[in-house]
Amino acid sequence: MSASHRYCVIMCGGIGSRFWPYSRTDKPKQFIDFFGTGRSLLQMSYDRILPLVPAENILVVTNERYVDLVREQLPEVSPEQILAEPDRRNTAPCIAWAAYHIAAKDPEASMIVTPSDHLITREPLFEECVLRGFEFVESNDALLTLGIEPTRPETGYGYIQIGREIEPGLLKVKTFTEKPDREIAQVFVDSGEFFWNAGIFLWTAKTIKNALHKYVSDLAGEFDKGIGVFGTPMEQEFIKTHFPACPSISIDFAVMEKADNVYVECAGFGWNDLGTWGSLYDNSPKNLAANVTQKCNVIAYNSSGNIFMAPDNKLVVVSGLKDFIVADAADVLLICPKDEEQKIRQMVNDVQQRFDDKFL
Amino acid sequence: MSASHRYCVIMCGGIGSRFWPYSRTDKPKQFIDFFGTGRSLLQMSYDRILPLVPAENILVVTNERYVDLVREQLPEVSPEQILAEPDRRNTAPCIAWAAYHIAAKDPEASMIVTPSDHLITREPLFEECVLRGFEFVESNDALLTLGIEPTRPETGYGYIQIGREIEPGLLKVKTFTEKPDREIAQVFVDSGEFFWNAGIFLWTAKTIKNALHKYVSDLAGEFDKGIGVFGTPMEQEFIKTHFPACPSISIDFAVMEKADNVYVECAGFGWNDLGTWGSLYDNSPKNLAANVTQKCNVIAYNSSGNIFMAPDNKLVVVSGLKDFIVADAADVLLICPKDEEQKIRQMVNDVQQRFDDKFL
Repeated sequence: MSASHRYCVIMCGGIGSRFWPYSRTDKPKQFIDFFGTGRSLLQMSYDRILPLVPAENILVVTNERYVDLVREQLPEVSPEQILAEPDRRNTAPCIAWAAYHIAAKDPEASMIVTPSDHLITREPLFEECVLRGFEFVESNDALLTLGIEPTRPETGYGYIQIGREIEPGLLKVKTFTEKPDREIAQVFVDSGEFFWNAGIFLWTAKTIKNALHKYVSDLAGEFDKGIGVFGTPMEQEFIKTHFPACPSISIDFAVMEKADNVYVECAGFGWNDLGTWGSLYDNSPKNLAANVTQKCNVIAYNSSGNIFMAPDNKLVVVSGLKDFIVADAADVLLICPKDEEQKIRQMVNDVQQRFDDKFL
Repeated sequence: MSASHRYCVIMCGGIGSRFWPYSRTDKPKQFIDFFGTGRSLLQMSYDRILPLVPAENILVVTNERYVDLVREQLPEVSPEQILAEPDRRNTAPCIAWAAYHIAAKDPEASMIVTPSDHLITREPLFEECVLRGFEFVESNDALLTLGIEPTRPETGYGYIQIGREIEPGLLKVKTFTEKPDREIAQVFVDSGEFFWNAGIFLWTAKTIKNALHKYVSDLAGEFDKGIGVFGTPMEQEFIKTHFPACPSISIDFAVMEKADNVYVECAGFGWNDLGTWGSLYDNSPKNLAANVTQKCNVIAYNSSGNIFMAPDNKLVVVSGLKDFIVADAADVLLICPKDEEQKIRQMVNDVQQRFDDKFL
């Protein structure tokens, strides 16, 4: 099938609260230049997909409060390519809307759905993998997810157990498992049968619409009410009314874990969901003392295993700090042991209790 | 003697490097509003002395690079009351210049010499003590230092051993001891015979000039070359040439430890030299977890014994930090165990090696 039928949906509506205080409600992590390269994670996601899909076929789905940020960071994306959600409703409604929107424009469309806030390395392998994935879903009635070969017993990720091989590197999915404990994660990694679920999906608009009807009929029913308005000037008005009525569920839970035409493509590119400070640490180059420094200048004495993030040109001088997150975000300074990063959500709640939205 | 012959010399030329990164070469600690009261340490020193000495008799001796800061912070002090040192030369040359300057204006002058970067509490007791000190030195050929009753075995201070009592609370000094180790400091405290040397001195201009001639004749000789120019428009020109030739020594070493007419007045006011972050911690009110918070908002989990200092309105969120200094000074963040604070000087050197004067 020609590339002109290929679409990309960049999901860009998250608030990334686990990356507070860098990720803020008015500028979540996907809009941040995390690596000091001059491009935000969203921009990197866009750059990555541009060689694979016609520019005018790239859609960005975001919350309406972030539309201005998207337009600022991606001025080459036209207003019609931005789908503004009036409410936060997890990935299934987001993907459903995009699928209905795309299907209305092009009934033969195939699409890749990708988060905007992950890190992908070894990009040539990503391109290869995505092109092959498009070909597979365009010639099979398949819901395809990309699986990453695990390099450590990560407990923060979802795992995919592989089943029968269809062709080399393309297999049926046997099971999905969310966030296993350390012991089970180790068994998964050792078995060679489990891959990380990268949350990157490929399918045709027709296949995902069918699956939505079959497995989340209330959600599909909500969007069916809009048949005829997608792709027209009435679409946004329709969404304003009907989107908030959608159930808030993930596409994994709504469809992937239930459907029987789910496949995984084993991907060789490097991937990190940048879900937490710890994953940013794990994925960043370290100096001799195993410290990670983002952007700022650091002089560290008797300190190791830390991740430092501070405004450009700030100097951080530390002594006697082991395995900490030090995140200085202009108006907020967070100092927290790396192994307590799951408490950051609670801290954010405590901050809200005391200061309302001032520091969020 | 009438108060019109009483003078005050506020020494204000230090750079306070142990309080880096708050104390900076372009704005040392005496110019900082450390306690968030709206007045800097220098301003607090001025306020404290104002009821005791005629305003026009208060001199501020500082480095020429800080003259603008002094004028900004003390607009009520006229330019003629500011003595601008062209070089850093410790306390003896500073005090010698002030003594020659005052003696030229008023041969009958008595004077109090005080640092500008210490904290004094229970100020009514300070006033009482200073007034009594003036009376003593005006009627005795005495070099008087104020001694503070020690409340802990502080190893960072100088100690004064008391000798024969002249009148209640006014005694001959037996010995001076600089910075004893912990064990000896404890013996000092337990003995009841030792007082902290607050570095606040009272004497007449005549008595200190005599002592300078007797114990540091090279220094006195340098200033004797200027007899006739002090208090005239040529004074600053003379100082520009001759001040840099002065030996860099402290008044304690140059005079106090050698002279035999040295007395101590036992003072009941609260005093802290704010020499280090630890002394600021010791001297500040603590919350239930024994954390000290200067100005900023702090939410602390599982953290105790820390001192936090950050820009106004910054939020600091910490977990798992015990007995640390966390000093966020806009362009520099220092995180350092309290018991390593003596390493801050070395850190400052390291910063200079890498960044020249950028962060100093």
